[in-house]
Amino acid sequence: METLIADMAARARTAAATLARASAADKERALRAAAAALREDALAIVAANRLDMERASANGLSPAMLDRLRLDAARVAATADGVEAVAALADPVGQVIDGTVRPNGLALSRVRIPIGVIGIVYESRPNVTADAAALCVRSGNAVILRGGSEAVESNRAIHAAMVRGLAAAGLPADAVQLVATTDRAAVGAMLAAEGAIDLIVPRGGKSLVARVQAEARVPVLAHLDGINHVYVHADADPAMARAVVLDAKMRRTGVCGAMETLLIDRGFAAPAALVQALLDAGCEVRGDPADAAIGGIVAPASAEDWDTEYLDAICSVALVDGVDAALAHVARHASGHTDAIVTADAAVAERFLAEVDSAIVLWNASTQFADGGEFGLGAEIGIATGRLHARGPVALEGLTTYKWVGRGTGQVRG
Amino acid sequence: METLIADMAARARTAAATLARASAADKERALRAAAAALREDALAIVAANRLDMERASANGLSPAMLDRLRLDAARVAATADGVEAVAALADPVGQVIDGTVRPNGLALSRVRIPIGVIGIVYESRPNVTADAAALCVRSGNAVILRGGSEAVESNRAIHAAMVRGLAAAGLPADAVQLVATTDRAAVGAMLAAEGAIDLIVPRGGKSLVARVQAEARVPVLAHLDGINHVYVHADADPAMARAVVLDAKMRRTGVCGAMETLLIDRGFAAPAALVQALLDAGCEVRGDPADAAIGGIVAPASAEDWDTEYLDAICSVALVDGVDAALAHVARHASGHTDAIVTADAAVAERFLAEVDSAIVLWNASTQFADGGEFGLGAEIGIATGRLHARGPVALEGLTTYKWVGRGTGQVRG
Repeated sequence: METLIADMAARARTAAATLARASAADKERALRAAAAALREDALAIVAANRLDMERASANGLSPAMLDRLRLDAARVAATADGVEAVAALADPVGQVIDGTVRPNGLALSRVRIPIGVIGIVYESRPNVTADAAALCVRSGNAVILRGGSEAVESNRAIHAAMVRGLAAAGLPADAVQLVATTDRAAVGAMLAAEGAIDLIVPRGGKSLVARVQAEARVPVLAHLDGINHVYVHADADPAMARAVVLDAKMRRTGVCGAMETLLIDRGFAAPAALVQALLDAGCEVRGDPADAAIGGIVAPASAEDWDTEYLDAICSVALVDGVDAALAHVARHASGHTDAIVTADAAVAERFLAEVDSAIVLWNASTQFADGGEFGLGAEIGIATGRLHARGPVALEGLTTYKWVGRGTGQVRG
Repeated sequence: METLIADMAARARTAAATLARASAADKERALRAAAAALREDALAIVAANRLDMERASANGLSPAMLDRLRLDAARVAATADGVEAVAALADPVGQVIDGTVRPNGLALSRVRIPIGVIGIVYESRPNVTADAAALCVRSGNAVILRGGSEAVESNRAIHAAMVRGLAAAGLPADAVQLVATTDRAAVGAMLAAEGAIDLIVPRGGKSLVARVQAEARVPVLAHLDGINHVYVHADADPAMARAVVLDAKMRRTGVCGAMETLLIDRGFAAPAALVQALLDAGCEVRGDPADAAIGGIVAPASAEDWDTEYLDAICSVALVDGVDAALAHVARHASGHTDAIVTADAAVAERFLAEVDSAIVLWNASTQFADGGEFGLGAEIGIATGRLHARGPVALEGLTTYKWVGRGTGQVRG
């Protein structure tokens, strides 16, 4: 398996050198052609997906897993639309980050370049094959895709369309490679391929991300948890607090940007009404039954609740004594993903924004904005909660690095 | 040992939270006070260093190692000057990298913040204790310093002065901690402290860097080799080529930015004169004795020479057929550090700058400019040849990350 991955990575490295020099127009043309190929192949892709679905049903996959796996004409069309949207994004490669002319006349600049070879390890959603490949190609990176074994036929069909797109623009087919085997050892070989693969991005559930983070020798961009807080300050407008809290928790409960813990300041006017709004929306709310303000309407919370990412219509709620207590709770329990404050007090808000050490910190806005599209980045390869390279929604820029370019006239240090 | 490092890292994390919020003025005041403390303590530091020197001599350290270890009044003063120079640098923390207002009115910006807890693993030069601590404090990071056992007394004396500086500005002493034990297991515990230490920067020889890169679970910023090339193109001005090549190789032969391989285009007018200039400067030159142009004056090169970082007055030289051959040689043998071209042909130069995949690529300038100070960065924590986070000279900005800050007026995704 190490040999297979090493061979794929070596071919990816060669393709990456070509892709790094490809024009923005060629990369855009490749992705538009890939989108067209996805549309042309829609019937074949759906037929391939049917094979995956039948095997997955026979293997007893859960209805939620089956829904993630399922492709139909509309989903293939949406995938093609997504590839075209990435094609339309500005090319980050060649951008000059900054520059200076030194006193000796040496002109220095930092220029964005692709990272090189990206590995994507993902699970049952076959659209990731197209989405991730498009983002990598647009940013000039070669990519090695390793999807879930349950989606192998779908992934092969989508991959074939992506490669046709590369060919249409004269770009190397090895720029987008799919690991053909369903042997789980392939993932281990990718994670160990230090120097051959430059970056691994896991896309999937917590157990996948945890395995990748635990095993990888290659750098990883990912988030494990989204234990996100909304702190409703004493000076929050009750209507705004209600709207933000309901959206943060209930708009979609299964996304990583969903609120999992609500912190209500003891000075806030109507804590029970806020909790009741969540209950009325169908959310289970867990808190301290001994607390006079909300105890009568909450289910009892255990100690683990404060460190739990429910990804469901469940929420923990705590009453806190002022911003210091809120900050302490967030510092102790947040997973570094997205945390928000609702308040009319700008000074308190700025303190929260400054002191909360998460990738995304919001004032008077729903945590569900944690998304590359909502941030204006076009599309995202994922959300990262690590502290190096890129944080929060990672899009094209996060798939680049830079080099220093110096133009002189014979300067020596002497 | 794991307990010791975990405890130090936990205290560093607490100190880092305070330091992250410290004003630019307070951090500057701490470093100016630290520089003053170094000057006040000069006699004590030199006396402590004498103990290290005596033990090191008795242990048979090489003269080069002893010179690196040695402190005198002038070196302590230079170290204090270096800390003051870092104090004077602009504070990167709080800088707004970019910002946008979304169509829904949500104002987003990316704000620089410190990385958190940095580990520095270094060898015999005790000035690193002050230099690295100063860069970390200036960028708002807490630091855990682990110097060489041969410099333990010197490092303790310098560390004491740095901590006095922190105290003078009301900053926590735990922001700069020195691993007190000389047990080598402490390094292993630091390298394994994933999540507790955010970044490791090794400062020292190749064996130290190799060990750190091989063992670390914590991200590492470093370079292993500086196998740097100068390509003298057919259209290079011979006088400029001579000046750049001599400086790149001979200004200082032991620095990581030194040229190790000279590539001379077969179309260049005077290859033998260029090689002779190196020989006249006292450099051993290894090449192909069968090559008519230079064979008569070079020592024979073995295959390993093309992948060797001499860090000495030795250089390999190859004649190449045009820019394609030069690029191929660099792609195969360069270590991703610093490579240069000398030519009067701008189109060829731009191609070299675009296609060479090293952290620093130079046109008509000596590779010995590979240095944070020369790049106008003030000072550097090191030079990185990895592909993520920061490349080339890493200074204050490389010791920061960012968070997304969003300011809304009640926005929900709906």
